[in-house]
Amino acid sequence: MATSFYQKLTEHFKSIYHLQHLQAIVGWDQATQMPAGGNEARSNALSELAITIHQAYKLSALDEWFDCAAEESLDIPQQQSLTEMRHQWQQATMLPAELVRAKSIAGNRCEHAWREQRRNNNWEGFKPLLKEVVTLSREEANIRASMTGMLPYDALLDQYEPEMTQQRLDQLFLPMNQWLPELISEVQAHQKSWQRLKPGHYDAAAQKRVGLKIMEYLGFDFNHGRLDVSVHPFCGGVAEDVRITTRYESDDFSRSLMGIVHETGHARYEQNLPQQWRTLPVGQARSMGIHESQSLFFEMQLAKQPSFLQQILPWLREELVPELSLTQLCQHYLKVEPSYIRIDADEVTYPAHILLRYQIERDLISGAIEVDDIPQMWDELMQKYLGLSTAGNYRDGCMQDIHWTDGSFGYFPSYTLGAMYAAQFMASMQKTVNIENAIQGGDLTPISTWLSDNIWSKGSLLTTDELVRQATGETLNPQYFREHLRNRYLN
Amino acid sequence: MATSFYQKLTEHFKSIYHLQHLQAIVGWDQATQMPAGGNEARSNALSELAITIHQAYKLSALDEWFDCAAEESLDIPQQQSLTEMRHQWQQATMLPAELVRAKSIAGNRCEHAWREQRRNNNWEGFKPLLKEVVTLSREEANIRASMTGMLPYDALLDQYEPEMTQQRLDQLFLPMNQWLPELISEVQAHQKSWQRLKPGHYDAAAQKRVGLKIMEYLGFDFNHGRLDVSVHPFCGGVAEDVRITTRYESDDFSRSLMGIVHETGHARYEQNLPQQWRTLPVGQARSMGIHESQSLFFEMQLAKQPSFLQQILPWLREELVPELSLTQLCQHYLKVEPSYIRIDADEVTYPAHILLRYQIERDLISGAIEVDDIPQMWDELMQKYLGLSTAGNYRDGCMQDIHWTDGSFGYFPSYTLGAMYAAQFMASMQKTVNIENAIQGGDLTPISTWLSDNIWSKGSLLTTDELVRQATGETLNPQYFREHLRNRYLN
Repeated sequence: MATSFYQKLTEHFKSIYHLQHLQAIVGWDQATQMPAGGNEARSNALSELAITIHQAYKLSALDEWFDCAAEESLDIPQQQSLTEMRHQWQQATMLPAELVRAKSIAGNRCEHAWREQRRNNNWEGFKPLLKEVVTLSREEANIRASMTGMLPYDALLDQYEPEMTQQRLDQLFLPMNQWLPELISEVQAHQKSWQRLKPGHYDAAAQKRVGLKIMEYLGFDFNHGRLDVSVHPFCGGVAEDVRITTRYESDDFSRSLMGIVHETGHARYEQNLPQQWRTLPVGQARSMGIHESQSLFFEMQLAKQPSFLQQILPWLREELVPELSLTQLCQHYLKVEPSYIRIDADEVTYPAHILLRYQIERDLISGAIEVDDIPQMWDELMQKYLGLSTAGNYRDGCMQDIHWTDGSFGYFPSYTLGAMYAAQFMASMQKTVNIENAIQGGDLTPISTWLSDNIWSKGSLLTTDELVRQATGETLNPQYFREHLRNRYLN
Repeated sequence: MATSFYQKLTEHFKSIYHLQHLQAIVGWDQATQMPAGGNEARSNALSELAITIHQAYKLSALDEWFDCAAEESLDIPQQQSLTEMRHQWQQATMLPAELVRAKSIAGNRCEHAWREQRRNNNWEGFKPLLKEVVTLSREEANIRASMTGMLPYDALLDQYEPEMTQQRLDQLFLPMNQWLPELISEVQAHQKSWQRLKPGHYDAAAQKRVGLKIMEYLGFDFNHGRLDVSVHPFCGGVAEDVRITTRYESDDFSRSLMGIVHETGHARYEQNLPQQWRTLPVGQARSMGIHESQSLFFEMQLAKQPSFLQQILPWLREELVPELSLTQLCQHYLKVEPSYIRIDADEVTYPAHILLRYQIERDLISGAIEVDDIPQMWDELMQKYLGLSTAGNYRDGCMQDIHWTDGSFGYFPSYTLGAMYAAQFMASMQKTVNIENAIQGGDLTPISTWLSDNIWSKGSLLTTDELVRQATGETLNPQYFREHLRNRYLN
């Protein structure tokens, strides 16, 4: 029997999958193991690999294979697999090589300079570099738009969150303007007497022991993954061997601990993607927002429950703070406090940081604003949402994030989409799973099973909307997130 | 100016170098970091990479580029660079794909079965698998011979030790038949009252601290490398980022310690290969024998000197054995004792293990003996050299090594060639460097400088014979090794 075009495509994408494996592991090594002196050779090796992978996507026969495969008789999952291969292929080949190169150079230059400029609050030095990145990102958005028939910003979103649009984001996010600042104030009043834990001194090895215990409790599969240290925590590696990282702070155990929970959420999604589709795009995670929904489900929906904190309290007492009380731990992890820095934000103020960035990047790509307008818009929205001024404070304002320095416009919304999906999943799960029972019984299997059945095992076999509809009975409804915040923080 | 063919070749080999970087790092990860469950995906990814690299060697234009480059006006180092590129290219492309595949399958099968069969002393089960490997290796040797005009076994040697031949090995090795068994007896008589250290209990972390101190003393560059743990110690990674490994035994610190010294010798060679030729074959290590000469120079010529052991004694006392005396340490490390297992052998009996293997594999490839003859020949030679019988004891006899299971015939001689080169280098170095002074002064720079000037910085810019001649005034002369053994062990 002749090989079908669909089979040819799956073989070819399997090869790409294997090369991406190398990319993931070598990238992890760079962040966790590599001595500094190895960086130049490593960067060259990774560039060579990127070229090799790009050449695989550019194989000239692919055009014909996709056309012919579309005529073949495929079952529903194969059809979806074909759709996802085509989407990945288009994403990887859509831009002219010169633009990719120009954006890469401008992005590297801007990101590199930013590390120093941010420290020095040097907006004037940063501005021309960012302008170059924005110019190229607009060009990218226009090309992606013309190739896909989408609007420019939607075409950027499509890389991270397929089918999400500016129009939907406006509907999902902008209403927060009406209720979020008020909720933050209410919660602050409600928590007036709450205290966060004071800095202490905590052994990294002890923090790691607790982290590993919690990973085990959360079902992390240590036969297919590991925990290490990096400056910026991430979930990397491959589905068969997931590498999560954390950073232990000597005066605060709580960030690393909750960071490990967060990355474990990402990891369990990866570890439980559908086996039979492992090497194909359709077997990979649905979107950045859905990925973030899993990390935030573990971190926010699960681990910040008082009953969960109660479960891990004995481990913390044994290894880190002998006298720690549940009240102290709950107040520490649930305390809401407006602050300048997104990555330090609590669950309630975090969406304000995203709402702000979303509106700025949306308007930046459309041309409604220019780079020069960013600091003022940032300051106005920070004042409006969080009552904080960033006038003149670029370091803790519009220069705090790495995302825009290399032109990753369209990524920020995923964080709050993830929080919204997570709340909706929890609301739905509660209908059939006794979550408190599972937590208190020390066996989270019923929770994992729901997530596995409804999210993890689906890979990209369904569109995001269909995935969410099958799991919860409706597409994304931001009401669940609002209710979650009100229930948790005002009751 | 048009790109020369020589430049085209260097660009192409640079790309291959970058891909080999990925191979080295991902291979290191597999041996040191990867959880077991990641192995299947990892093997697939590494296969894909091997195919990618093979395709790069098979680029059809290379034929023409090599022919045209040979006509270009190149300086001497460029001519040598061209020679080395051509040698690497020929090595990588000489065999028909079907034979490579057949040998890989037979080798994997034999090696895999061997792990269990060795444990069970199951020669009858192992034999047919090894026969298959030998048949394919003979075929390989014949093809390599016909492509290069060499004799079959020489063509296998050429992969590890270019320009070495069976004829030279016979001259270098066979005379040991006359003096080695006798020397071993004499040394044993001389050392009659010597004791090895008794097993103790040693913390892995303490062993590591001492290991790191010794690496620093030996000049290991931690900005371009690291030390980790693996089941089988090795020196891996890339010249810019050398990854050495060890295995800490809880009852014996001495093996890991000397293993670290050995791997540090390999590592310093790699770390100090010529910068300007880094990405090309001519910038890589000269041969397996020369590589081993560097590890054995550090381990045998340097670290087993009583003055060196005296230097590290305080660290051992502080971290591991408070009461340790220099005499105990010297006797432990210099004690000569015939034993069955090559990798456990001391400096004096080790060449006997190699001499035995050399004669067997030489005759196996020529067809003078068959697989069935191996156990008897092994037993006879073991009795002759070391006074030990392996009759019926395959596990500690001809089934002890991994090398033949995957058809790496021609590799074993490198170990003893390395020991011979190391002794000759030491004899020559002593003419201009006060080695005892350097060791006792705690600064090994004069020793490193000699090695760097004469060996490391030369990469493959000279043939092995020319390298040795320039460094020592003559080509390999086995007399130095014999004298070294007599001087060290009978005085």
